[in-house]
Amino acid sequence: MLLKTNQSGNMKPILTFIALLFAISVFSGTTGKQTFLKWELGYSKTATDMPSKWIPAAVPGAVQLDIAKAEKYEPYYFAEHWKDYLWMEDQFYTYRTTFQKPELASGERFFFVSKGIDYQFRIFMNGEELLNQEGMFTAVNLDLTDKLKDRNELKILISPVPKKHQLPADRSQAANVAKPAVSYGWDWHPRLVPLGIWDETYLEIRPASYIDDFHVNYSLNKELTNAEIKLEISGQNLTGLPFVWTLSDETGMVVLKSEGKTILDFTDPQLWWPHDHGKPYLYTSTVQLLDASGKVIQTRESKIGFRRVKLVMNEGAWREPDGFPKSRSVPPAQLEINGRKIFCKGTNWVNPEIFPGIITRERYNELLNLAKEANFNILRIWGGGIVNKESFFDLCDEKGLLVWQEFPLACNNYPDNVHYLSILKQESASIINRVKKHPSLAFWCGGNELFNSWSGMTDQSLPLRLLNSQCLELDPNSPFIPTSPLMGMAHGNYVFRDLQTKEEVFSNMARAHYTAYTEFGMPAPASVEILKTIIPKEELWPPKPGGSWESHHAYKAWVGNTWLCQDIIEDYFGTSNTLEELVANGQLMQGEGYKCIYEEARRQKPYCAMAANWCYNEPWPTAANNSLISYPAIPKPGFFAVKNACRPVLASAKFSKFKWTEGETFFADVWMLNDLPTDVPAGKVKIKLVAGKSEMVVLSWDYSAMKANVNQAGPTTRYKLPAWSTDRFKVILEVEGHPEYNSEYILAYQPRSVQRVRTTPVMNQ
Amino acid sequence: MLLKTNQSGNMKPILTFIALLFAISVFSGTTGKQTFLKWELGYSKTATDMPSKWIPAAVPGAVQLDIAKAEKYEPYYFAEHWKDYLWMEDQFYTYRTTFQKPELASGERFFFVSKGIDYQFRIFMNGEELLNQEGMFTAVNLDLTDKLKDRNELKILISPVPKKHQLPADRSQAANVAKPAVSYGWDWHPRLVPLGIWDETYLEIRPASYIDDFHVNYSLNKELTNAEIKLEISGQNLTGLPFVWTLSDETGMVVLKSEGKTILDFTDPQLWWPHDHGKPYLYTSTVQLLDASGKVIQTRESKIGFRRVKLVMNEGAWREPDGFPKSRSVPPAQLEINGRKIFCKGTNWVNPEIFPGIITRERYNELLNLAKEANFNILRIWGGGIVNKESFFDLCDEKGLLVWQEFPLACNNYPDNVHYLSILKQESASIINRVKKHPSLAFWCGGNELFNSWSGMTDQSLPLRLLNSQCLELDPNSPFIPTSPLMGMAHGNYVFRDLQTKEEVFSNMARAHYTAYTEFGMPAPASVEILKTIIPKEELWPPKPGGSWESHHAYKAWVGNTWLCQDIIEDYFGTSNTLEELVANGQLMQGEGYKCIYEEARRQKPYCAMAANWCYNEPWPTAANNSLISYPAIPKPGFFAVKNACRPVLASAKFSKFKWTEGETFFADVWMLNDLPTDVPAGKVKIKLVAGKSEMVVLSWDYSAMKANVNQAGPTTRYKLPAWSTDRFKVILEVEGHPEYNSEYILAYQPRSVQRVRTTPVMNQ
Repeated sequence: MLLKTNQSGNMKPILTFIALLFAISVFSGTTGKQTFLKWELGYSKTATDMPSKWIPAAVPGAVQLDIAKAEKYEPYYFAEHWKDYLWMEDQFYTYRTTFQKPELASGERFFFVSKGIDYQFRIFMNGEELLNQEGMFTAVNLDLTDKLKDRNELKILISPVPKKHQLPADRSQAANVAKPAVSYGWDWHPRLVPLGIWDETYLEIRPASYIDDFHVNYSLNKELTNAEIKLEISGQNLTGLPFVWTLSDETGMVVLKSEGKTILDFTDPQLWWPHDHGKPYLYTSTVQLLDASGKVIQTRESKIGFRRVKLVMNEGAWREPDGFPKSRSVPPAQLEINGRKIFCKGTNWVNPEIFPGIITRERYNELLNLAKEANFNILRIWGGGIVNKESFFDLCDEKGLLVWQEFPLACNNYPDNVHYLSILKQESASIINRVKKHPSLAFWCGGNELFNSWSGMTDQSLPLRLLNSQCLELDPNSPFIPTSPLMGMAHGNYVFRDLQTKEEVFSNMARAHYTAYTEFGMPAPASVEILKTIIPKEELWPPKPGGSWESHHAYKAWVGNTWLCQDIIEDYFGTSNTLEELVANGQLMQGEGYKCIYEEARRQKPYCAMAANWCYNEPWPTAANNSLISYPAIPKPGFFAVKNACRPVLASAKFSKFKWTEGETFFADVWMLNDLPTDVPAGKVKIKLVAGKSEMVVLSWDYSAMKANVNQAGPTTRYKLPAWSTDRFKVILEVEGHPEYNSEYILAYQPRSVQRVRTTPVMNQ
Repeated sequence: MLLKTNQSGNMKPILTFIALLFAISVFSGTTGKQTFLKWELGYSKTATDMPSKWIPAAVPGAVQLDIAKAEKYEPYYFAEHWKDYLWMEDQFYTYRTTFQKPELASGERFFFVSKGIDYQFRIFMNGEELLNQEGMFTAVNLDLTDKLKDRNELKILISPVPKKHQLPADRSQAANVAKPAVSYGWDWHPRLVPLGIWDETYLEIRPASYIDDFHVNYSLNKELTNAEIKLEISGQNLTGLPFVWTLSDETGMVVLKSEGKTILDFTDPQLWWPHDHGKPYLYTSTVQLLDASGKVIQTRESKIGFRRVKLVMNEGAWREPDGFPKSRSVPPAQLEINGRKIFCKGTNWVNPEIFPGIITRERYNELLNLAKEANFNILRIWGGGIVNKESFFDLCDEKGLLVWQEFPLACNNYPDNVHYLSILKQESASIINRVKKHPSLAFWCGGNELFNSWSGMTDQSLPLRLLNSQCLELDPNSPFIPTSPLMGMAHGNYVFRDLQTKEEVFSNMARAHYTAYTEFGMPAPASVEILKTIIPKEELWPPKPGGSWESHHAYKAWVGNTWLCQDIIEDYFGTSNTLEELVANGQLMQGEGYKCIYEEARRQKPYCAMAANWCYNEPWPTAANNSLISYPAIPKPGFFAVKNACRPVLASAKFSKFKWTEGETFFADVWMLNDLPTDVPAGKVKIKLVAGKSEMVVLSWDYSAMKANVNQAGPTTRYKLPAWSTDRFKVILEVEGHPEYNSEYILAYQPRSVQRVRTTPVMNQ
């Protein structure tokens, strides 16, 4: 075979053999030890062709990144190089590795484990097909024991990017797969569709008796003073074997122990709370599998938090609709944790990398620390992206961040067909069984905007009925919603002023009446520093459609001139003379716009119970985007504006518009907002207007003591605007003795212009 | 034992023995033969007390009716005698019967079968408990064979009416049972809660090998030219036994045959259609179980119709909502049968008897014939009532009437608790597996008005998530909605003019914009003839609150003076001098009000796709009610008004109000309505006003040809009303050459009164 050429007549087999030698792993048997292998990657036009060459593969990773590295591609995030990667969609990929037969003690089994392979794949050992799977969220656990030879070759053949049709080449190609639609192209995501081994992958020696999965199910009594615990153990050859389970508190002290019993009561558990409502208390669960002599065969440790989550009716929502003919009341959008209604302040999380294989715990940690800093208590894991890796949920558990988890359906009409439903059933079961263990899980959601025209799914769509059914069966204690927005909830707008009606966010939000604002965006350009890393110098100024700016979503991304929106920015602040000026004004408007929405949503509490902007982060450096954080984890100024708007307690001002004119009577409603679970004592707020060096106190308000989680509406301040030589002024709310409650807003100002005065509501002039 | 007294010291056992002798049944074994037994009934205060006497029991029936007969109660429907029956709620009931051991051939089994026992019961044979069941919709199939003695006694012990709490004594007592809530009292139903054996009950000899259940599942291809049939056979000892299945057409010709194959294609099936869209074509399915020698062991025959049902998006509904922030689009409420969108004209069906045990096929037939005569194509089987007996569905299949089937949940907050969920799971499985075989089944619905404040359930309620899941698993081809109304659908109003705002149905409906009007009511008194059978002579005139009128829902039934609404009737037509006059005016207003709603809903097609009034029939004779048909099956005049409004094609007039004044300019929009699946040729309508002997043609309109299922809006007619000496006038629409399209409306008229002219939109005076 060595000297024989293959069908295409070249010498590939020899190269293959050399690579094969290189990759052979040797290891001796140690039960439970995970061995990570060296992998190689090859690609070919068909499933049956041999790859023409083999390159080193990073596992976990993505085939595109391996090729880019081996073949020295320019980085996909610079200029328009992402286009160079497009051909990679349509190849067949083969991962391969070799290893020697391990020494196994009697009864031990030898497994190949992968927590995720993207997307359609077949696994071969020594030429024999062991698995053919569709679905990236269902882990592979292959018992290789009975097939082992002295020297073994594992191959994973991955099919090209699945496409429902060739054209249009957009997200609709993903409408019949359980693979994130975002990578097929989105208004903030280039078309780059990952393929490959994307999560932890290893070989493992397991004892003959082995716990595969362990669930500590519980239900809390009404008073939250007792958890009825039900242990659920599944695995191989467990019959008759004893186990010991312990629950330890944060000090390491064992607070509950079971020797074989699966139903136990745990009295007075410390509850897990989102960070802004209490401590996200985590216990350690340890289960030990013993042999007949009492020797420990296997130990599994995990964290567990006790909390009860419900979606309950928003206050006032039962009173609607009024009159006849009468429709239904809205579905509940008020989250209740441990019996306490909490106002959800959060954001929409998207994949932090285009290639999820390279997301690390460190990246998650960095982004989640910022989310906590921003005073967010919930993250909506948008259905266009992946279901995150385990470390994400571990960190959310620790940090007290709630997770709204969507299934991978977004903006498509996922079909009722039997094949898709079977894959969705398999993938959803894997997702639910993994994620439900985490106390951070707030609720499940079928996916993004599925009940809107651009998706075209309805309440009758079987995929959504199936997901509801799956969640009910596998995780009945967690709420499920089929999509966002639901009736009474709202998405959008995504710009500072409506592109058709030109209505500003300030008046638009004041008219709005929703139970939850679960998406709303405000675009801003990235910092000049970031722009320089993605846009070639010669294209940098002035920005224009086509080329790198457009590739990075500054133009034609959504509608109109999104997301740079230079026209709107310059409408308020005049033509920008430099990139720095344009960026600064755009970023200012993002912050002011976002503050308006978060604070108005909070003022609409308790009918309104959620505010989550679109979007938090981004998977690559965009030139302009609604994100608060530039790739990889660099906050925009808007991040800090939102952080302030989401403080538990703050003084807040409600404006009717952004731009004010000399001589016009400025007015604003003043509020104290309180999301704390505790009362806030009375105090005094001063409202100041500041323009350049000119500064005046226009109102002082003594607010009374505030009940826990209750806001207080204050007076309306009015002030005839003097002549200032500035294009902006500040409104500052100073709370006596509580600088941490202070707020500051920047508004646009137009001197010596009287035309607009007449079109504005004018009082007390 | 005979001479020994029991614990309470009386002689009951002796009486018992005598009765027992009387009731013994003797029968010889004949496989498949059903033997109906004589039953006796006794009652007692506790489950352990022996009944003090035994009375004959009608099976199926209800314990109340047996007692009433044996103890000579006044009929519950007369005066206020229903109150005499209330004590019966809280007794324990025992049915008993005896029979001799049958002669069984080798292998034959002997079964006790009951299709329904209401509600909580235990079954004993010869003192041994064989079953303890909660749930009236799950049939009992008890194999008695191995327990038989020469002489056998069967006893069924039925628990008292289940009550969640003692007070309030209303429907909320039924909030944790799968038992119709209506019988706990409703605005048109007295409090009378049935208990007992309510459906067919018998003993049966079965062969050793026996088909318990047989499903002809199928799915039609997109073009409806092929049914992929999947036979599903379940039963006892079927392994290895051959079967033959045939499908015969209406002429009896076998069109498809299978000898053992369970998956078959059936090409070009004749489709089942609702009666107004085609023929409700039924095939006969016959399965024969054979023994090894080819001898027929068992034959099961049933009807099957091939149709595809979907709930699809209403036309225009994807364009809503408009603007930002944006919520979801409405759920679909457009029924599509065999690929054709049909406008659903129907009604809300309630139990035709207070005691469902005495409903007969004949009663169903009578009521369903009237429904077809009324041009209805769908019946909503309201969740406050029972799921009907088999004969109901058989008749709907035959007559081409669609069935919207609800589960027994209505106007309560059915809980998430484990016990209720387990009963609901059992009962829903029984209901689904029975009803899904019928082509008349249009879709499933969780129950009535569950997402409104008076119920308090939400999308998170586990019972509704469970029902969705059950329907998906057991009948994935039928749509499921959690409740009515859904978003975009509407219930109400139930009166001619709003009780608060006094807005009339005419202007209210003109402002309404819904996908489906699935409940709307218009009250009318019963005929004088009926009233005389339920209200004692001395109470008959004038009607007043309290006493028999109120017991029969004329007062304080819903809100205000419902359902007699004498005040509203007299507001339009002056004080009634006789009962006859009051009834006539009330019945006239019911008809005109209902016509307004049905016709306006049809004018709102295609966005609107359903109209179904509240309610069709009634379970006992009411004095006043929204029903179209008085108990048992006597149409009110409103029935014929609705029948006219629901004709496939008609000329229709839209009014802005009911009462018009001398000198005022009367106006109406003229339409041609077409629900036919075929085009309608052009024609001419004349609009006439008729007051007494005065008659004038006020407009003539040449309408053009109408496409199938498309209406045509015509001109607005205007006419200054002359002086008439009448309190009402007619508007007559005459279609040349098509008297079957003619319509006639009656409106109220006020002579010599000018005050109201100024408050009315007046044009062209």
